Amino acid sequence: MIALRRFAPADWPAVWSILQPTFAAGDTYAYPPETTEAQARTLWTEAPLATYVAEVDGRIAGTYYLKPNQPGLGAHVCNCGYVVAPDARGRGIAAAMCEHSQREALALGFRAMQFNLVVATNAGAVRLWQRMGFRIVGTLPGAFRHRRLGDVDAHVMYKVLAP
Amino acid sequence: MIALRRFAPADWPAVWSILQPTFAAGDTYAYPPETTEAQARTLWTEAPLATYVAEVDGRIAGTYYLKPNQPGLGAHVCNCGYVVAPDARGRGIAAAMCEHSQREALALGFRAMQFNLVVATNAGAVRLWQRMGFRIVGTLPGAFRHRRLGDVDAHVMYKVLAP
Repeated sequence: MIALRRFAPADWPAVWSILQPTFAAGDTYAYPPETTEAQARTLWTEAPLATYVAEVDGRIAGTYYLKPNQPGLGAHVCNCGYVVAPDARGRGIAAAMCEHSQREALALGFRAMQFNLVVATNAGAVRLWQRMGFRIVGTLPGAFRHRRLGDVDAHVMYKVLAP
Repeated sequence: MIALRRFAPADWPAVWSILQPTFAAGDTYAYPPETTEAQARTLWTEAPLATYVAEVDGRIAGTYYLKPNQPGLGAHVCNCGYVVAPDARGRGIAAAMCEHSQREALALGFRAMQFNLVVATNAGAVRLWQRMGFRIVGTLPGAFRHRRLGDVDAHVMYKVLAP
């Protein structure tokens, strides 16, 4: 049973325990692998419009943020970032968060969702977003400096949200 | 004769006189048409890594900024925004700024340049960037809320910078 809800300050230690290994791995997010806890807290829970957590059996197993992808005349398109705890993968948590984020985005007035830098070697994520209706709009050659693989391509993915 | 140099604080009134009508028109940049002078100064001259002006006969006729397009593992790709004074268009100032920005980007260590939201109806800009070696990587449907035309498409454009 996956329960989605808004992030609360008391959730931070659990959220950081998910973000830290993800950023440190340097294979999915552009945030520097050496991102500090304070920087992570700002970028994940303060800079975005909203932050959410996914609980499985009462334990936080995933988190995502939602924010406008551009200012002003581009602010009807949102952007989300999702992270699942390494030991909770393969249980549909990313899919549940993505579904939830699309409903939230519509409720908040957004009309489309864009992912700016989906690392091409992260094949599971690419397939999952495609299955959820996102299209690869284009591919940026060498735009992601993968910590193990060097420069790899990244996709821009996009979905018009239908109410 | 177009001379390119770094922005200095004393240039601000001239730069704002170029940015203000551009943002207010709402047909090329996502910044809200009602962006204030203080907000514009921050986003154009403080948030970016560097800001430049183009002088024609000693008068500032254009300006651009340069910054990393993503943090950390995406920070080898830069992003630029260029604006030419409405009464100085058609004199090659945008092209001169774009050429200059590519040299500057290489000197600053960047490996590629990305434009995230090139408004499709801004055909002159699209053609100019293509002529300068940028490729339309993908097109975002309805991603720009054009002040007169409503939602229009926007292109992601990209160029690998060769030293």
